[in-house]
Amino acid sequence: MRALANDPAARALEDDAAVLTLETETLVITQDALVSGIHVREDEDPADIAWKLVTVNLSDLAAKGAEPVGVLISHMLGQGDERFVEGLGEVLRAYDVPLLGGDTVGSGGERRSWTCTALGRATHTPVPDRRGAHEGDTIYVTGTLGLAMLGIDEDERNTESEADLAYRRPRPLLAEGRALAPLVSAMMDVSDGLLLDCQRMARASGTSFHLDSRSFPVADPARADACARWGDDYQLLFTAPPATAIPVTATRIGLVKGRNDAPLWIDGKRPEDERLGYQHR
Amino acid sequence: MRALANDPAARALEDDAAVLTLETETLVITQDALVSGIHVREDEDPADIAWKLVTVNLSDLAAKGAEPVGVLISHMLGQGDERFVEGLGEVLRAYDVPLLGGDTVGSGGERRSWTCTALGRATHTPVPDRRGAHEGDTIYVTGTLGLAMLGIDEDERNTESEADLAYRRPRPLLAEGRALAPLVSAMMDVSDGLLLDCQRMARASGTSFHLDSRSFPVADPARADACARWGDDYQLLFTAPPATAIPVTATRIGLVKGRNDAPLWIDGKRPEDERLGYQHR
Repeated sequence: MRALANDPAARALEDDAAVLTLETETLVITQDALVSGIHVREDEDPADIAWKLVTVNLSDLAAKGAEPVGVLISHMLGQGDERFVEGLGEVLRAYDVPLLGGDTVGSGGERRSWTCTALGRATHTPVPDRRGAHEGDTIYVTGTLGLAMLGIDEDERNTESEADLAYRRPRPLLAEGRALAPLVSAMMDVSDGLLLDCQRMARASGTSFHLDSRSFPVADPARADACARWGDDYQLLFTAPPATAIPVTATRIGLVKGRNDAPLWIDGKRPEDERLGYQHR
Repeated sequence: MRALANDPAARALEDDAAVLTLETETLVITQDALVSGIHVREDEDPADIAWKLVTVNLSDLAAKGAEPVGVLISHMLGQGDERFVEGLGEVLRAYDVPLLGGDTVGSGGERRSWTCTALGRATHTPVPDRRGAHEGDTIYVTGTLGLAMLGIDEDERNTESEADLAYRRPRPLLAEGRALAPLVSAMMDVSDGLLLDCQRMARASGTSFHLDSRSFPVADPARADACARWGDDYQLLFTAPPATAIPVTATRIGLVKGRNDAPLWIDGKRPEDERLGYQHR
C-alpha cells in the first residue's frame, strides 16, 4: 500500500498520522483498528476495548502535538454493546472529544474488530515527524515503561492498581505532546515496545540510535528487558537537540548518531535477537 | 451511540457524514465499513472490494457536495491482498484521491472487514443535510435504480455489462453532488434502496414523502418493485423547491408534504410491508 501513498500528507505511511495542510489549518488524522484476540483479549471488558480504541488513536495525535477535534468509530455489533457504549462515553468525556460519526456493522458472531479515526488540529507546525531525528540529538522517553505489561497479569486484573489501569485504561499524553511539539526534532508514541519503536524512528530518520539500557525507566527492574520490548504504554519517544530544555518529565535514554550498518545499538552492541517488540502482521 | 454524538458536527449521526467547521474550511468526514459475507460476497474479487470500499465513502461525500481530499483504509490482511491493492490503486487514480493512511491488521483467517474514512472539503455551505426537506419541495433521484441488483446475477458476473459494472464498480456522483449542493434543500445517496432512504430522509426532515411509483427510473420494469428496494446504486436522492432548475439528469419522483401519520406514502398509500430496503443490523 505504501506505493499508493505518494501524497506528502501521507508521510509515506511511515509516521503515526497523516498531516493535511489546508488553507489556515493543519489537520492530523490517524486510524487504528483493534482486533479481538490480537490486540485485545477475547474476554476483555468491552468498556475497556472502547477506551483503548479511542486512546490509541488520541496517543497518535499526542505524538504529533495535535488537539483532538473528533473521532469516528466503526463498531462490530455483538455481545457487550452496552458496556462498549459506556466505555466510549467515558473516554470521550475524559478527553472532551466529540463523536463525529462512524458505522455499526454486523459481525456474524465471529472475531470482532473495531476501527477508530481521530482528527486533530495541529498546535504547532511543522508537525513533529518520526523522520526528523538528527545526528547529535538526545533521545528521550516519557514516563515508565512496562507498566501495561505488569497490568496484564491475572493477579493485577481489575484491581485498579497503577499497572492494571496502565493496561486497561491507557492515557494519551496530549498535554505533553503539545508542550513538546515546538521543541522536538522527531516524536512518536511507543505503542509496540521501546526498542522496536526506537529502531523504526532511527530507520525513518536515516540515523542510528545508541541507547544506554541502564537508563531505561522500567516499571520492574527484574524484568527490565521485557519492559523495553512490550508495547501498550503509549509513552512519547522523542529526540531533541542537546541544549533543549525539556518541559515534561522524561528520561534521557541515548544519543542519535549518523546512519551506519545498524539502526539500533544498545550499550554499544547491536541487539542479537530479532524480536524487539510487538510486530504487527 | 447516538446519545454520545451531541456535537453539532455529528449531525446527530442522522446524516451521511459529519460536517466539521474550521476557521476557513468546512470538512466533511465519513466512515463506512464492509464486512465479508454481509456487504460483499465471500468470493468477491478483492480488487472490487477495494473499489467499493472507497466509492461508498466517496458517494457520501458526493451527497454533501464535497470534494475528496483523502482516504484512510483499515485493511484486514488475508488472501488476495495484491488484488486488493490493485483495486485500491485503480479507484484512487480514477477519482484522484490521495491515500493518507490507515492500518493493516491480522484477521486470524476468519470473517474479514475493511474500513474506510474519507475526508472532503465542502464546496458549498451550508453543507446539504438529509434533514432539510421542506413541505412543497419536489423529490428527485439521479440515474437508474436497480442496475446493481441486476449485476448481482451470476449470468452478468464479470461481463463488464452496465449492470455488472454498476454492482462491482459503482461510481460516486461527485460532480453531480457539487452541482446540486447550492440548490437542494436535502440530499443523501441511495445506498440501501430508494424507498428506505426516502423514508429516512422524510423522518429526518420531519416531513412526509409522497412518491409516484410509476415515475421511478427503474432498470427493469418487470422488477420495478425490487429495483426501488435494492441498494448499491449510489444515486443521489434530493429535494428542492419546485421552481429550481436542476443542472443534472434526475427524475422527479414525488412531493414533500408536512409531517403526518406516516413518513412514506407510495401512490397515495402507506407501504404495507416492513422491508423497504436493505436494513443494516
